[in-house]
Amino acid sequence: MVPFARYLAMNKITNIKRYHIAKVYRRDNPAMTRGRYREFYQCDFDIAGQYDPMIPDAECLKIVHEILSELQLGEFLIKVNDRRVLDGMFEVCGVPADKFRTICSAVDKMDKMPWEDVKNEMVSEKGLAPETADKIGEYVQLNGRSELIDKLVQDAKLSQNKVAMEGLNDMKQLFVYLTLFGVEEKVLFDLSLARGLDYYTGVIYEAVLAQSQAATQTQHNELSEQVSVGSVAAGGRYDGLVGMFDPKGRKVPCVGVSIGIERIFSIMEQRLEASDEKIRTTETQVLVATAQKNLLEERMKLVAELWKSGIKAEITYKKNPKLLNQLQYCEETGIPLVAIIGEQELKDGVVKLRVVSTREEVDVARENLIEEIEKRTCQP
Amino acid sequence: MVPFARYLAMNKITNIKRYHIAKVYRRDNPAMTRGRYREFYQCDFDIAGQYDPMIPDAECLKIVHEILSELQLGEFLIKVNDRRVLDGMFEVCGVPADKFRTICSAVDKMDKMPWEDVKNEMVSEKGLAPETADKIGEYVQLNGRSELIDKLVQDAKLSQNKVAMEGLNDMKQLFVYLTLFGVEEKVLFDLSLARGLDYYTGVIYEAVLAQSQAATQTQHNELSEQVSVGSVAAGGRYDGLVGMFDPKGRKVPCVGVSIGIERIFSIMEQRLEASDEKIRTTETQVLVATAQKNLLEERMKLVAELWKSGIKAEITYKKNPKLLNQLQYCEETGIPLVAIIGEQELKDGVVKLRVVSTREEVDVARENLIEEIEKRTCQP
Repeated sequence: MVPFARYLAMNKITNIKRYHIAKVYRRDNPAMTRGRYREFYQCDFDIAGQYDPMIPDAECLKIVHEILSELQLGEFLIKVNDRRVLDGMFEVCGVPADKFRTICSAVDKMDKMPWEDVKNEMVSEKGLAPETADKIGEYVQLNGRSELIDKLVQDAKLSQNKVAMEGLNDMKQLFVYLTLFGVEEKVLFDLSLARGLDYYTGVIYEAVLAQSQAATQTQHNELSEQVSVGSVAAGGRYDGLVGMFDPKGRKVPCVGVSIGIERIFSIMEQRLEASDEKIRTTETQVLVATAQKNLLEERMKLVAELWKSGIKAEITYKKNPKLLNQLQYCEETGIPLVAIIGEQELKDGVVKLRVVSTREEVDVARENLIEEIEKRTCQP
Repeated sequence: MVPFARYLAMNKITNIKRYHIAKVYRRDNPAMTRGRYREFYQCDFDIAGQYDPMIPDAECLKIVHEILSELQLGEFLIKVNDRRVLDGMFEVCGVPADKFRTICSAVDKMDKMPWEDVKNEMVSEKGLAPETADKIGEYVQLNGRSELIDKLVQDAKLSQNKVAMEGLNDMKQLFVYLTLFGVEEKVLFDLSLARGLDYYTGVIYEAVLAQSQAATQTQHNELSEQVSVGSVAAGGRYDGLVGMFDPKGRKVPCVGVSIGIERIFSIMEQRLEASDEKIRTTETQVLVATAQKNLLEERMKLVAELWKSGIKAEITYKKNPKLLNQLQYCEETGIPLVAIIGEQELKDGVVKLRVVSTREEVDVARENLIEEIEKRTCQP
């Protein structure tokens, strides 16, 4: 988000919605044993601009939901929280302002250790009063949806805190929008989600995949206590970052998400290795093929016709390829159709169109070929 | 091509066709005043594998032709030559083997200076005998297509040179394939094309754009003497490069082309600035809009329906946007359709579909909306 914010400030951009997939480089020394390399691919989606509350924020969550659903990565959960709810909560619990950050990073460990250990860290290592820690504990063990937000809005202490109430009201609005988008079931308001809060100013979120093996454990909350295999997407609102790079401090409100594509790819690869699924390695729709000799020139003419009409087509780069090899190539790469020509087809003005998966073959008049291929491959 | 060849060798890949667009970094100190930066985008297309002669080579030229035609960059010419024709020519002219390379780089200047100056460089600076230079001059001033190849095949000296004849026979075959692909008119066999020959082993090519202002000059050859604005694509066959990176020296024949996308983009930008053409800055097909207040939730529901069907759709992130602003946004960004809802449309179960360019509006039953949008935007 930092390079994006700098880019907006330098180019005086006040409105943009964009995604970005690129190789980036870590500044720190990554722990390569944990699969963190210095060079890696990052995928970001961000919406910048002065808009009405929570509308772009809801779209970011919708996009995370869509990506994780479409890729069929199994059960997932998107935890959300709000910087302002956390700040307000720490305040009403009596955490000194200079301890917000360190207490925050302790709270963030609640997905990895039980509350008692987190409390212990707060009290013994970070010098927080045990009563203060207990008050925090009452909040950060909560998670839920609209009903929890309603409860917190009426909470004796939080309701007195202006910042917390702003966060809670926005969170309520967010769940209304998430329901309209049909994604609220996979989103959970979780007061222990704390992430690095350095530049987040509003909503924060993190998507985690659930391991299905853990589904047999006794569970209080069906989704949140499945063993997480780690975060696959995370982000939030960062309204102050662009202003830090603008010489005049002009702010551009932003909300965005980073998708952990390297982790997602490694999960998908594992799943594919475990199954017998074929990965389609090409976008080619048709292979122009022949069973006879000396038809390279005819194949070239036909493939050029298909290219001209925008069909993704290929020929084998051999003068006299075997039909079997051409069909095997389609099966290996996932090309769905074969347009076969021979002396007879040329004489009759037809092309034999073969569906690779079913082996069905049909003669198509040459002038109808484009239309027929489009009908069979275009998925509008 | 070097990183690609290394990649093939390291991963033992013997067959691949791929394109690649990425930021790369120059090793040398670029002359930034001439628009050469150390960081720049490169676009490559390569075909690797043991195939029958000139089939993938012809496809590379077809692709260059397609790119330059589709982008409407104006008149262009693709010059082709062959490393073996150049080597054979130098041999039969009597150039000492250790002078091939330096004479080659002199020949390569013929697009920028007249033959007399090039000859002068060969003789005075590079110590070539004047008769040898004159013999070279007879060849390198030639350009043409099949008829020139036929003439050279019968050339008393060249026809005695095995390497040159291999190159000429392949060149003849290449033009047959280019004719089948319908691109031979823009391709010119030019014996002065010499490029850096370090790793090329067969056909070489370079695409140049012609400046139309130059079209009024007296011209011997219509295309080749228009003033070139420089190379926008170049490449050739490099059959030895992968073997250099393979520990056992296993060769993988390759042919490829680099597209000068930065130069092409700057030409396209200049042209767009000069015209009043609108650049479409989004792929969005439909904006879901309203003229009335309090319909954000209905817009959200509809946009989610469209997303679910794979339609590229947007809403404005405002609770109560003005219709005019929503329509202006479509005009600015080039979104072709607007799906307008109001109280009446919701009651009637319809959506008002507006075509931005014609301002035509038609009521579409909600259950037919997806189909109607697809019909109007899908270009199969």
